[in-house]
Amino acid sequence: MTTTEPKVSDPYPTRVGDQPRLIPRVDPTVWGQRPGPIEAATLRSYESKGYLTVGGLLTPTEVRFYRQELEKLATDPALKADERTIVEKESAQVRSVFEVHQISEPIRELITQPRVLDRARQILGSDVYVHQSRVNYMPGFTGKGFYWHSDFETWHAEDGMPAMRAVSMSIALTDNYPFNGGLMVMPASHRTFVSCVGETPDDHYRASLKEQEIGTPDQASLTQLAADHGIDQFTGSAGSALMFDCNIMHGSANNITPYPRSNIFVVFNSMENTLRAPYSARKPRPPYIASPTFTPLQNPGL
Amino acid sequence: MTTTEPKVSDPYPTRVGDQPRLIPRVDPTVWGQRPGPIEAATLRSYESKGYLTVGGLLTPTEVRFYRQELEKLATDPALKADERTIVEKESAQVRSVFEVHQISEPIRELITQPRVLDRARQILGSDVYVHQSRVNYMPGFTGKGFYWHSDFETWHAEDGMPAMRAVSMSIALTDNYPFNGGLMVMPASHRTFVSCVGETPDDHYRASLKEQEIGTPDQASLTQLAADHGIDQFTGSAGSALMFDCNIMHGSANNITPYPRSNIFVVFNSMENTLRAPYSARKPRPPYIASPTFTPLQNPGL
Repeated sequence: MTTTEPKVSDPYPTRVGDQPRLIPRVDPTVWGQRPGPIEAATLRSYESKGYLTVGGLLTPTEVRFYRQELEKLATDPALKADERTIVEKESAQVRSVFEVHQISEPIRELITQPRVLDRARQILGSDVYVHQSRVNYMPGFTGKGFYWHSDFETWHAEDGMPAMRAVSMSIALTDNYPFNGGLMVMPASHRTFVSCVGETPDDHYRASLKEQEIGTPDQASLTQLAADHGIDQFTGSAGSALMFDCNIMHGSANNITPYPRSNIFVVFNSMENTLRAPYSARKPRPPYIASPTFTPLQNPGL
Repeated sequence: MTTTEPKVSDPYPTRVGDQPRLIPRVDPTVWGQRPGPIEAATLRSYESKGYLTVGGLLTPTEVRFYRQELEKLATDPALKADERTIVEKESAQVRSVFEVHQISEPIRELITQPRVLDRARQILGSDVYVHQSRVNYMPGFTGKGFYWHSDFETWHAEDGMPAMRAVSMSIALTDNYPFNGGLMVMPASHRTFVSCVGETPDDHYRASLKEQEIGTPDQASLTQLAADHGIDQFTGSAGSALMFDCNIMHGSANNITPYPRSNIFVVFNSMENTLRAPYSARKPRPPYIASPTFTPLQNPGL
């Protein structure tokens, strides 16, 4: 049996045809009116642009603490051999550690704090769970970028996420300049789904975590989105955070500067948007990349 | 006979040892007090930072005209087969055309206009000639960057340029954003010569025009220079220009945005700084990369 046939009921078909398509989003961006720490104006801006920033989410002391935690994780020999750790081919340096909220107690605790969790619940209008978590290390001089993509395209096609009801938070542990490979987003692009061509090969995640190929938007669609919306860059001090919608078009250039970049990255998905069978792949990705367990997060002490 | 032995009289030895070194510059940056179109404050800033920008050097009409001229050059089949044209390996697209002031009459004419030539003569305090000229095309989506380097290091080692008495002008024909692979410079780094390790292989220019290897500064030196000076980016509208000292440390990231970049690039060398035998290579590079003919430029109509 193959699950790559288009489903009549799927508003976001992808990897099913030989022509890319721009499809309007049918889901809300902000779900409901749940109260939370995000101010009304910021939330409206998130709704229209698909992202928001939080200056000083972590204190300087916390930044130092979590940088040490990342250092500890990157130098743990047992963890380096773990399949959840992505090591860069050429340099043998750790680039990411997945499912990090199950590995690091301080990171698990951070994710459930009101300043983090309640912002995600406010946007998604429900209880949430962690679809994916990781820490990222981009070295100076040789940091490789990521080409343009929508996370939702992959999560829908390969993980079976039904609707656009997920939000990512990236917490910077290093300063983001315009020139050291920080995230670029096309504001308001989250309202358009770029249906990609091609068919998902088996075990695609092994290659795609290092370099995306299938599920890559075509140049004409990207040109159109950039002409409509322009490009914004996420810059700011260590400790600031970026929250962005699962469908926003984003990417990053390489980093030849001496300034490395690292961050904590968490994807919150709504408890009302839990995974089904993949929409365009024969089998789902491993649990440390796309959690098949849907446990609602709670604030500490609850 | 080899010319790679260190010369006692050479203040800028490079590619002669196995340890990189930071060597203070002995040459002035602005030579003398020759009058010209650069204002005093701008010239002082150039002296301390090693670069200056000129907004609106070309009018919008001229930008359109020279973009057409570049289009003409890039699509000329005879020129594409010319050794002076650098074609990108993977895409087969034209990346640069060298010695373009000998190929394109409008570009030759532009270079001799007072707004260009007189700025170069003012900085170098003498008559000048064209050491190198080219047009550059960096495509959107797949534009490759250039790693950090000092031009003078190469011109000294491989072309036999004795002193730091040359200045480059890059005239933008497309808008430069912080995110489409524009030039990054380390301001004030022109006062330090980074002596590189290794020995120049024969015909090094064939590889180095596409990707620099030998003559590449080490990471410790770059970290030191960035810590001392920081990084500036050249952004600005099409028609603006950047002039920078031959020894400033510069580089560029790749360009995944849909916005291509193109420019006209000219290196002016002082008539009192003409080439000798290469300081660290067995034979000089071809004439279209490093002119062995020293003909002083004159304003049109003179």
